[in-house]
Amino acid sequence: MAKEKSLDLLLTVEWKDDAVVLIDQTKLPNKMVYVKCTDYRQVADAIKSMVVRGAPAIGVTAALGLALAAKQSKAKSMQELMTDLDTAFKVLRATRPTAVNLFWALERVMDKVKGVKTVEDAKKAVLDEAIRMAQEDIQANREMGANGAKLFKDGDVVLTHCNAGSLATVAYGTALGVIRATREAGKRVSVIATETRPVMQGARLTAFELQHDGVDVSLIPDTAVGHMMARGVIKRVIVGADRVLRTGHVFNKIGTYQVAILANKHKVPFYVAAPLSTFDFESNPEDVVIEERSIDEVVKVGRKRVAPKGVRIFNPAFDMTPPELITGIITEKGVLKPPFEKNLKALLG
Amino acid sequence: MAKEKSLDLLLTVEWKDDAVVLIDQTKLPNKMVYVKCTDYRQVADAIKSMVVRGAPAIGVTAALGLALAAKQSKAKSMQELMTDLDTAFKVLRATRPTAVNLFWALERVMDKVKGVKTVEDAKKAVLDEAIRMAQEDIQANREMGANGAKLFKDGDVVLTHCNAGSLATVAYGTALGVIRATREAGKRVSVIATETRPVMQGARLTAFELQHDGVDVSLIPDTAVGHMMARGVIKRVIVGADRVLRTGHVFNKIGTYQVAILANKHKVPFYVAAPLSTFDFESNPEDVVIEERSIDEVVKVGRKRVAPKGVRIFNPAFDMTPPELITGIITEKGVLKPPFEKNLKALLG
Repeated sequence: MAKEKSLDLLLTVEWKDDAVVLIDQTKLPNKMVYVKCTDYRQVADAIKSMVVRGAPAIGVTAALGLALAAKQSKAKSMQELMTDLDTAFKVLRATRPTAVNLFWALERVMDKVKGVKTVEDAKKAVLDEAIRMAQEDIQANREMGANGAKLFKDGDVVLTHCNAGSLATVAYGTALGVIRATREAGKRVSVIATETRPVMQGARLTAFELQHDGVDVSLIPDTAVGHMMARGVIKRVIVGADRVLRTGHVFNKIGTYQVAILANKHKVPFYVAAPLSTFDFESNPEDVVIEERSIDEVVKVGRKRVAPKGVRIFNPAFDMTPPELITGIITEKGVLKPPFEKNLKALLG
Repeated sequence: MAKEKSLDLLLTVEWKDDAVVLIDQTKLPNKMVYVKCTDYRQVADAIKSMVVRGAPAIGVTAALGLALAAKQSKAKSMQELMTDLDTAFKVLRATRPTAVNLFWALERVMDKVKGVKTVEDAKKAVLDEAIRMAQEDIQANREMGANGAKLFKDGDVVLTHCNAGSLATVAYGTALGVIRATREAGKRVSVIATETRPVMQGARLTAFELQHDGVDVSLIPDTAVGHMMARGVIKRVIVGADRVLRTGHVFNKIGTYQVAILANKHKVPFYVAAPLSTFDFESNPEDVVIEERSIDEVVKVGRKRVAPKGVRIFNPAFDMTPPELITGIITEKGVLKPPFEKNLKALLG
């Protein structure tokens, strides 16, 4: 069980003994089980079935999946290796459509192989880059945390939606990384986690990892957000992101948009914590595909059927929050304030 | 199974063979099971544990509970009978604190006993009044439906939260009664039901009863309301109420308030359907007790634990929607428009 170890020592995703090792997040909070992938197709399945989830964690996992494909490859020439890597690239890229880190990570690894002369060197380059990305993820989260911590006050009660925590990244977390850094800066913070139907990442993962770290955490149904804000309980909101456009449009877990509207209505500051790997500088809002997931996520909880057979279900996994509802976007390079497009250019120099 | 019968022939609550017979709504949508109560304390337990729920259904069930207490009484004098009835009154009144129909129904039945001379006459008066209330409930729902149907257009897609349907009343429903009446008036209506965490009345009951009646119904997680409104899918919202104040403040299932804010933000008309028995002409908003229910409703779904052990949980069962977010309140006497306090006086003459 997780309780016997410190989560600081646990990694959501890790390269170990020539395999990709993942915490099986579908089993939390009841069991802490590790999944060992020795084939990149297992990695792709793990991303699809949400054994691993969270935009940054998906990116690193896919990169390590490519490293696994390189290792598995029996290629004798660079051409053969590139064919094998291209196949794996496509399989991994097709796992989920919304989080941009996935595409960013896979392309970054593929770029590293360009110009490499030997199969051996190329395999090493892929693995090195994937491992470097895992390390950079933790580093970016710590920097984001330091930048975000300045925005939070001693005694703050902070609402978060879904899980943008340690379990959504390699470690430390984005939104919850800011919470951790705020605490490390000596400020007391209480967190209110929404359950986050249908997959319950708030109940299963956020409540679990914060409770485990000794952070004061409460859980509420998604239906209680407005009521808690009307009562004045919530002082700030912080969420992660699956994709941030240059205009400041944020794609994140379904429900984020309505939490942002409720925050706006109750004059509660609404922050997004996202590393620059989550930014998509190309797309316009209408270009982004919002994943529609299986109705099984809604119909059943465990083995318990909670909806009648045959009823039509909409299960969009993400929604879009427009920039006018966002107080600030916390990145590893600094905090972006509106107007986001202009200030993003300034931030990136 | 329900599928083999018409729901029109099913009654949520019924006096039958000297007992109170209830559909066990905690078992839906998986099993259609009836509970037969032969002791008023069983009736009280059924209300508490939400075997029966929905403000109008609770009112009638409690009234029939009093009839059961009268039947059970071995009183030889009116004084003894009144003592027995008072005891039952207190037990039934203490079951749930927010829905006002409960108090209204119990007091109405008790009023009928005043001035009655014999134990036999009093027992009959209690039962007659409770059965009359059950009949009036259906009648009021049909009148509300006729009044509300005028507000809906052919082709409307209507969002509803929780279950204000047949299963929340004796039959026909309040909010869903308006949907039924709109269809009976020859207009096509599609319904989008929210799941309504934590107890899932939308998934388990609304989707079930509308699907059963052949109404086009879709189910969405509570987190998807804002997204569906942003996409322009939802044309109107209709909900029921557990208590309506003279000022137009509406107490209803947790999550109603935020749906009202989202409707307001997206310029979607927001209607409440509530019989006058749901109105509380005395209380101010701050007087109303919002029931906080067991954390078990949030921690587990069926046998599946979805939150870690020991995490603090807030589980308010209701919230308050202020009058400025409400387009109209549909009653059996007509549709109230703002300003509600003034127009309510006019409506009641």
